Amino acid sequence: MIIGVFDSGLGGLTVVKELKKIQSPLHIKYAGDTLHLPYGHKSAKAINLLSQDMAQYLYAQNIDLLIVACHSASSTSLQELKASFPIPVIGVIEPVLEELKDYPNIQNIGVIGTFATIKSHTYANSLTQRSIKTFELACPLFVPLVEEGWTNEPITDLIIDKYLNFFKKNPIDALILGCTHYPLLKTAIAKYLGPSVQLLDSAECCAKLIAQKCNLPIGGDNNMSHQLEISVTDYAKHFHVLAERFLGHKIEKITEISTIDINQSTERTWLL
Amino acid sequence: MIIGVFDSGLGGLTVVKELKKIQSPLHIKYAGDTLHLPYGHKSAKAINLLSQDMAQYLYAQNIDLLIVACHSASSTSLQELKASFPIPVIGVIEPVLEELKDYPNIQNIGVIGTFATIKSHTYANSLTQRSIKTFELACPLFVPLVEEGWTNEPITDLIIDKYLNFFKKNPIDALILGCTHYPLLKTAIAKYLGPSVQLLDSAECCAKLIAQKCNLPIGGDNNMSHQLEISVTDYAKHFHVLAERFLGHKIEKITEISTIDINQSTERTWLL
Repeated sequence: MIIGVFDSGLGGLTVVKELKKIQSPLHIKYAGDTLHLPYGHKSAKAINLLSQDMAQYLYAQNIDLLIVACHSASSTSLQELKASFPIPVIGVIEPVLEELKDYPNIQNIGVIGTFATIKSHTYANSLTQRSIKTFELACPLFVPLVEEGWTNEPITDLIIDKYLNFFKKNPIDALILGCTHYPLLKTAIAKYLGPSVQLLDSAECCAKLIAQKCNLPIGGDNNMSHQLEISVTDYAKHFHVLAERFLGHKIEKITEISTIDINQSTERTWLL
Repeated sequence: MIIGVFDSGLGGLTVVKELKKIQSPLHIKYAGDTLHLPYGHKSAKAINLLSQDMAQYLYAQNIDLLIVACHSASSTSLQELKASFPIPVIGVIEPVLEELKDYPNIQNIGVIGTFATIKSHTYANSLTQRSIKTFELACPLFVPLVEEGWTNEPITDLIIDKYLNFFKKNPIDALILGCTHYPLLKTAIAKYLGPSVQLLDSAECCAKLIAQKCNLPIGGDNNMSHQLEISVTDYAKHFHVLAERFLGHKIEKITEISTIDINQSTERTWLL
């Protein structure tokens, strides 16, 4: 089975990390739009155009399934992407909403994400229909914090407090980590909010839903020999280091691909 | 006189703010590549292509002078831009190096900036020739900190300490603020480093050099009626708010422009 995964950058590799727990050999083709990252502050129009381009690149490689591992794109462009490609297209938002069905007692929920995700109100619109009170909060500093590798420092706790003390005033039963970078802050966030708040990690929910839909076993030791290919629209060594941080292991090869705005016919391969 | 100013985003408006201190009426055309911001993590190839595109857009509008108000582009693409356009092209790095001639006693200097600026070693290469010992440091969290508006908070001081305690171990006489976002952190940085460290603000140095070269008076009250037009490659309300923060006053109109990768022939205008 060939799964295509795209993200505005490399945060979507947290989804890949979870997909690797599927106990059946997968061929994962990952494409990160590093030339345009982050999508979080962009207009819906720009996110639509860029997402179509990334999806088209993966679709042309005979993928069986497309994962939109970017919350900004999932909240803005998912319907357009579903309509454009004749294969299943799964975002990172619907898996969380599916997962929530297992928690019928949740009444108050927090959603954190980028500006684009929060402004789209995608989570809130859906949760309100289920009579769940939703508190949405953009946390723009979490992404650079993760990218700098500061996930367990006094600064981490201070920034978490600065944003999330909002949920001390507005108590919640669960918090949706609405950005693929956030799983790297999960430990620190869990410590801050305490055990009474259930954390919903969209990367985890996404892999779980795909395993379910494709009837594949998931979990246990990650000893399956999955194949992973990583492409980016702009290669810089910094991205390579960052990709390894997200995946938690070495990456031998990253390929640079051309998209709409850099008209080069050749691919270049980078070894770190 | 028509001055074109471009930046990867809106940080370059700190240069515009300084240009407005010139006591002669200017027509400033500002273009921010918000579709591709930030340039700081991008490859040299991408920065070159994007910079050419932004410069071409402004050049086509009969500007007399082009300011590359982006450190990443100034350190990576300035020579190519100078060779491409038959008008004076000034980056934000050379004005600081010019200014430094007024401080002959400086022996140890710090440079802070984005990854791209620091990795290019543009400042260090030039300063080492003058026998000035240079310490370079990338401070990637400073940009999102400024964009979040957290320029005077306990977090600000903690992040400043996290990066700049390096200069407590490696004492310096002056620090170059090598990113157009950093003037908004000047007060906090000055407080942290103390009065013995001279801060060199590239936005200020740039406006000063242009006034000098064009033989125009600069300084005093900003009561000149300069004309300012702002264009961006992707409009989102967030950018509008941010632009006002950088300039320190309301902006009535921002125009969205098409560049290489969004093929639209129409311009759209946004009023906040």
